[in-house]
Amino acid sequence: MLGDTIVARATPRGFSSVSVIRLSGPGSVELAKKIARTKANLTVRVATLFPVFSSDGIKIDSAVFTFFKGPKSYTGEDVVEISCHGNPFIGDSVINRLCELGARTAEPGEYTKRAFLSGKIDLVQAESIGLLISSRSSEIAKKQSMILDGHLSKSIEILRASLLKALANLEFEFDMSEDENLRPSLKKDLFKLLKNNGLSVEDLLSTYSEGRVYNEGIRVVLCGQPNAGKSTLMNALLGVNRSIISPVPGTTRDTITSDLVLGGVPITLVDTAGIDSPENQIEAEGITRAKTEIENADIVLSVFSGDTKAIDYIEDKEQITVFNKVDKYPSPNLPLGSCSVSAIKNKGIDSLKKLIEKKVLSITLNSNDVFLNTIRQKNSLTNCLRFLKKASSNIEKSEPLYELAAADIRSSIDCLEVFLGKTTTEEVLSEVFSGFCVGK
Amino acid sequence: MLGDTIVARATPRGFSSVSVIRLSGPGSVELAKKIARTKANLTVRVATLFPVFSSDGIKIDSAVFTFFKGPKSYTGEDVVEISCHGNPFIGDSVINRLCELGARTAEPGEYTKRAFLSGKIDLVQAESIGLLISSRSSEIAKKQSMILDGHLSKSIEILRASLLKALANLEFEFDMSEDENLRPSLKKDLFKLLKNNGLSVEDLLSTYSEGRVYNEGIRVVLCGQPNAGKSTLMNALLGVNRSIISPVPGTTRDTITSDLVLGGVPITLVDTAGIDSPENQIEAEGITRAKTEIENADIVLSVFSGDTKAIDYIEDKEQITVFNKVDKYPSPNLPLGSCSVSAIKNKGIDSLKKLIEKKVLSITLNSNDVFLNTIRQKNSLTNCLRFLKKASSNIEKSEPLYELAAADIRSSIDCLEVFLGKTTTEEVLSEVFSGFCVGK
Repeated sequence: MLGDTIVARATPRGFSSVSVIRLSGPGSVELAKKIARTKANLTVRVATLFPVFSSDGIKIDSAVFTFFKGPKSYTGEDVVEISCHGNPFIGDSVINRLCELGARTAEPGEYTKRAFLSGKIDLVQAESIGLLISSRSSEIAKKQSMILDGHLSKSIEILRASLLKALANLEFEFDMSEDENLRPSLKKDLFKLLKNNGLSVEDLLSTYSEGRVYNEGIRVVLCGQPNAGKSTLMNALLGVNRSIISPVPGTTRDTITSDLVLGGVPITLVDTAGIDSPENQIEAEGITRAKTEIENADIVLSVFSGDTKAIDYIEDKEQITVFNKVDKYPSPNLPLGSCSVSAIKNKGIDSLKKLIEKKVLSITLNSNDVFLNTIRQKNSLTNCLRFLKKASSNIEKSEPLYELAAADIRSSIDCLEVFLGKTTTEEVLSEVFSGFCVGK
Repeated sequence: MLGDTIVARATPRGFSSVSVIRLSGPGSVELAKKIARTKANLTVRVATLFPVFSSDGIKIDSAVFTFFKGPKSYTGEDVVEISCHGNPFIGDSVINRLCELGARTAEPGEYTKRAFLSGKIDLVQAESIGLLISSRSSEIAKKQSMILDGHLSKSIEILRASLLKALANLEFEFDMSEDENLRPSLKKDLFKLLKNNGLSVEDLLSTYSEGRVYNEGIRVVLCGQPNAGKSTLMNALLGVNRSIISPVPGTTRDTITSDLVLGGVPITLVDTAGIDSPENQIEAEGITRAKTEIENADIVLSVFSGDTKAIDYIEDKEQITVFNKVDKYPSPNLPLGSCSVSAIKNKGIDSLKKLIEKKVLSITLNSNDVFLNTIRQKNSLTNCLRFLKKASSNIEKSEPLYELAAADIRSSIDCLEVFLGKTTTEEVLSEVFSGFCVGK
């Protein structure tokens, strides 16, 4: 698999000043020289202008070539970046020509996969690259940047080093003593170490909900009876006209989603159909969808106004009650954490945004500067914790089962190595990299 | 205006592997070093990895910096390209930080404008860069590439050199002879030269229609009575379901356009409402729009079938008559250049495409390998031709008015200099570059 040379756009396909096409693999330099019809050598890391030709010898474009010699390249292999004019058809022609000459188009995430396989980065960093690129706010991009720099991997390495040392101590004691009369302090030391490491793992596991929020965003669902002004409120929160509004109750039939960033966290705002007795099949479907959205919500905005009632059956959900239309009706007494607004007059919208932001930050609050990014990472750590607990209970016994505990500690270390991708399977890699864009 | 340092994305804003941000101006290197918080010098043209920091010292990303020292750069000024991860929020953060540090965001086309102002390219090449990027097929991109390489400018330079020489000869004769008894062959020589150059200019002027087609595409309008199957035919030509179709006559109310490339030429296919007695206001508006589309068409596809009649009032238009629904009705005798198809069964569609392609190529057929790209170029040459003709008529007279002719030749040369942008006004430059994208 690593023998061939891959090619793809590294920049979005579109009309722009520049488009970067990236070759990686052992044939990169040869292919680059062939498309440029040059015998000149490519100097490492020096940007050099070359013409680019189609198979019939017609010049397609002039492009800047930069050669990154492996292992000092993104993938660890020889890489040539070809920066041509930002016209999608020119880019297509260059890629097609390179494929004619022997390259093949890259699969999604294949560049990063090669970087991982050549040992340039671990699997945690590889995952963070995909998530860095898909980040929906600059704050989250910065956080991913830290994980890409190895901060999360380092926490795991520290855990691993600590457990490896414990295991070595245990095995050393086995070798020294013929019988099972091990050093008296061993049990106490080991138990403490396992407990502390277990707490660290639990601490990291608690960050997964934060990572999920960062990567998937928080769903804030607007619900209420028809004509409570949900769509007008949604438009006011977004500052644009996303939802079609009208004075006719039941204007919104399907759920409508739109993105927003509050406190650096990406929010998916969901406008739903008003919940009431449906008059027809389409409305009934709209109400069913609204209820599903409420179930999947992280935060529910329960919207009502002077002429509609608040919906009161939302349980176990972070909720903000919003009284709308204060321009027309006097505001009732509202519980703490509620808010009166006039969506149509754009009044109280900033206060409501602050309320939402406060709730969002309470969900993402975390004392760590790193967080778990993927369910794969979470599962590895959950398994690790299970083995640490097993090891503890084997040591805790009045007749400690040290050999079993040693096996458990070894298994917990294995889990950390899976976490970092030191041991992994092709299926796991496929799953990790299939979510990437082509060209990364 | 050239004193400040500008910044913009050179690649489309989007989610991708890489995003390139470009600084140009005297402060480029200093700004690049400030955002990287480095004292290291940037080596010319060597791609080097640096961290990138926000104002509060938090690392935004790692990025590859490449310094192109003026005048050996795109703009002719010092340029630094910063290639960061392809996340739009990271790109925004980098640009914002560079602006905090003293850069300003570039205006549309400002990089190319600076390249022109610093003498790296002439105005014809500048125009071709904008059109190269917006090219809608790889064939046209290649043609623009030739103009960017200076092929069109060279034709104009040859004309200019010839006229300059003629003018010099004429002025030399004035200096030599006190009276008006000029060299006898002068009149004949001059007349011939002006005629030949006039023919060259006319030849170039005739290529403007080709350039217009390349840059704007050819409008192919489908028209016919309701239920002739125009929308089904449009979908068959596109190979996708663009238009909503139904067996109900009058399904298409508004005009619907879609893009296609035939023979390398971009085609805009236009589906129109069926032309018949309208039943209501909306249909009447649809028919009015259909008629406007027919007027603006380059090629009209007049579609009819066994149950509808061909529309016969299309005059002075390139036209292809298409008999649709051959799966249901026998094909009538059709004139040459017509075509029978079944749009719904996808039969005869390839033949129809070939017919359209033939018409398209007859419109764009041109013996030159270059063509006029813009109305500005066309106007400059039209003026040039006018002065050449004036010069000829002043020489043709039995008592030739050589001094007036010399002034005319000088004016015709001025027109060529305007063409190349050797003499130009800020208004002309604004108009040329305002059509560019930001970052180019």
